[in-house]
Amino acid sequence: MKETINIGLIGYGIVGSGAVKILIENEDAIARKVGSRLVVKRIADLDITTPRPFAVDPSVLTTDVSSLLDDHDIDIVIETIGGTKPAGDFIERALRSGKSVVTANKELIAKEGERFLPLAAQLGLDFMFEASVGGGIPIISPMKGSLAGNEILQVKGIVNGTTNYILTRMRMEGLGYEEIVKDAQTRGYAEADPSADVDGHDAAYKTAILASIAFTTRVDVNRVYREGITNLNATDMRYADELGYVIKLLGIAQIIDGKVLARVHPTFVPKGHPLAHVDYVNNAIFVRGSAVGEVMFYGPGAGSGAAGSAVVGDVIEVARNIRQGCCARVPCTCFDQRDMLGMDSVVCKNYIRILAQDKPRVLATIANEFADRNVSIESVLQKNLLDSDAEIVWLTHEAPEPMVRGALDAISKLSVVKQVSSWVRVAD
Amino acid sequence: MKETINIGLIGYGIVGSGAVKILIENEDAIARKVGSRLVVKRIADLDITTPRPFAVDPSVLTTDVSSLLDDHDIDIVIETIGGTKPAGDFIERALRSGKSVVTANKELIAKEGERFLPLAAQLGLDFMFEASVGGGIPIISPMKGSLAGNEILQVKGIVNGTTNYILTRMRMEGLGYEEIVKDAQTRGYAEADPSADVDGHDAAYKTAILASIAFTTRVDVNRVYREGITNLNATDMRYADELGYVIKLLGIAQIIDGKVLARVHPTFVPKGHPLAHVDYVNNAIFVRGSAVGEVMFYGPGAGSGAAGSAVVGDVIEVARNIRQGCCARVPCTCFDQRDMLGMDSVVCKNYIRILAQDKPRVLATIANEFADRNVSIESVLQKNLLDSDAEIVWLTHEAPEPMVRGALDAISKLSVVKQVSSWVRVAD
Repeated sequence: MKETINIGLIGYGIVGSGAVKILIENEDAIARKVGSRLVVKRIADLDITTPRPFAVDPSVLTTDVSSLLDDHDIDIVIETIGGTKPAGDFIERALRSGKSVVTANKELIAKEGERFLPLAAQLGLDFMFEASVGGGIPIISPMKGSLAGNEILQVKGIVNGTTNYILTRMRMEGLGYEEIVKDAQTRGYAEADPSADVDGHDAAYKTAILASIAFTTRVDVNRVYREGITNLNATDMRYADELGYVIKLLGIAQIIDGKVLARVHPTFVPKGHPLAHVDYVNNAIFVRGSAVGEVMFYGPGAGSGAAGSAVVGDVIEVARNIRQGCCARVPCTCFDQRDMLGMDSVVCKNYIRILAQDKPRVLATIANEFADRNVSIESVLQKNLLDSDAEIVWLTHEAPEPMVRGALDAISKLSVVKQVSSWVRVAD
Repeated sequence: MKETINIGLIGYGIVGSGAVKILIENEDAIARKVGSRLVVKRIADLDITTPRPFAVDPSVLTTDVSSLLDDHDIDIVIETIGGTKPAGDFIERALRSGKSVVTANKELIAKEGERFLPLAAQLGLDFMFEASVGGGIPIISPMKGSLAGNEILQVKGIVNGTTNYILTRMRMEGLGYEEIVKDAQTRGYAEADPSADVDGHDAAYKTAILASIAFTTRVDVNRVYREGITNLNATDMRYADELGYVIKLLGIAQIIDGKVLARVHPTFVPKGHPLAHVDYVNNAIFVRGSAVGEVMFYGPGAGSGAAGSAVVGDVIEVARNIRQGCCARVPCTCFDQRDMLGMDSVVCKNYIRILAQDKPRVLATIANEFADRNVSIESVLQKNLLDSDAEIVWLTHEAPEPMVRGALDAISKLSVVKQVSSWVRVAD
């Protein structure tokens, strides 16, 4: 049994310093939970002079990542740089030199998971990434462990804190996307270039990771449908409220006839649904299992403490495995080869807002286009605007996406229609 | 590496047959998740003739539990009899004959956990009990794993499905406890003798287990304060609603100055709190960690599939450990010796309903008793009843429980007061 397990950390930013703070502050309790002492032996970062929120002994810091990767006394490498390069190469070097790896890097796992998971398994090492999805919420480990008896049928949730913060404030304050995103940037809740969040890339990475674990198959992140929140506005927020819904950016992954459908898009969520109450930077993930039914995991989706908690949870698990000589005890679970489906397989209710001329028979003309494609209508709201225009809001019953798209194509070509202003899918 | 891992199950009831159904129906997928095949080799029950919802090969069934416990080929024993006797003796025999154990038995863990956890650790075996709390919700494993970096400060939640079902229906239908419990019994949601649920015993067992894991200490279940739901009525439900609350039976465990305060009692939960939306047989558990902040786990708290899912999740974890020769990789985490506190340490808001004479100065007289003990009042509602009585509903600010109790003792002795009809604690 190893009395001391040494840790090297690469990337001393928000997540990295959160993890180090926990490892040092709770060192004694963690030692008792593992049976061995966990020591942060080395921290590598390009910048080791800017003070961090949590100060460490300067002798631990280095700008030379090789001195960490080549140190034979280091048992576990934590990677919290983010991005694919150079993080991926550092991780591969760590694994090839016999170190287990814990990472928070969703982009890397989503794009190159295949590069690391089989390699770690083959080398008898652990490669863990709980912090890559849902911040501090335990979700990957429960899916691989406590829920492993289930065939998982669907995973669905709010997986991006920044967009949820923006949408929550748009709803509460009745303001548009542009106004809130600017304020969110000044407050540090959105990046200067917010596209990774607001265009749905981050949520797509996380949805791909969740789908991959849930459905025991590799998931090509490029085949995850992705639609961001930049087109949402105060008008749609208001109509959503009027109709009994809240707009959320959801990641949804499901199994249809053995194939995977994974998508990220703004969604009308009924006010009675628990996801409607998940606000600000919180995340929540629903898992539907064949035996358990529906379980939900909820908590802070971002932040130093939350992500640090998830990283340290993984480190503790790896340390227990190192102590017992049983790394790689959970085999790589991507043993299926499932095809992926596109959006044509979606069947759902839809919210559609159309700007049209305020003339007799306009409503009937549009309704006919829906009817021609068997898209039946649950409710219609027509509001006459000032300049002889009418805003017509439609809520359809469940309909196949190709039929809805076909109807909207035809409707947008009607001479009485000025534009199809919005189309948002509605969750059951 | 063992190619086949054999399982014996004792107690073929709701939970046991749920677990067996999953193990058999998902056998192939589970084998790939473990790396070895899991085989249900023997099922022992006193009754092996009554048909179960899931049929197994009759040759697997036995009424002779010793033939299972003495079978050297059986690696894992699942205990789903419930109760302390004879379950505890069977589990001890299983451990002493070198078998790891998975159980759903909350009463046994809460009362005699100390008998099994150190024994299993000493013998190098696993002893797991995810299904004992929260039905199908992963909660014990995440606390021991993903959240293990945190000092856990509070665990709070709805942990009994039967009482939550009764309270949900009382609220929705405006009926009293007696009416709903009778209907719940005929529908199979409450036992013929419902006391284990409605008097809070079941919730106390689960709260003791949660507290013990959260605070890394043994918890004496007899020192968990316990108050059931049998005194709740439609009137209090209505006032709760009027004041912006929902009444839930909560288990609450917290650390105060290093000591453990654990309690089960009806609680006013603000309508904006996620726990207020957990209805019917669902359970939800909040965990507050020093690093992660607050995370919530939600899902079905009972039922064959839910509990079976939790049991099989444990079995899969144990099987992975057996395969790698690393059972007992998670040490027993009760390494602290913490004292337990009583209800005198509670500081909270309170809902109090008083029946008094409808006379001048009654309100002031009662208010003086609160004021004398520094119990300040957030709001008061007075309703005059038909027969010259007045019903006065008080919502206090946060106050120490001994002060509130002192005030109520004095108030109940006032000549103008007919009775203190209700006293329910209010959650923040």
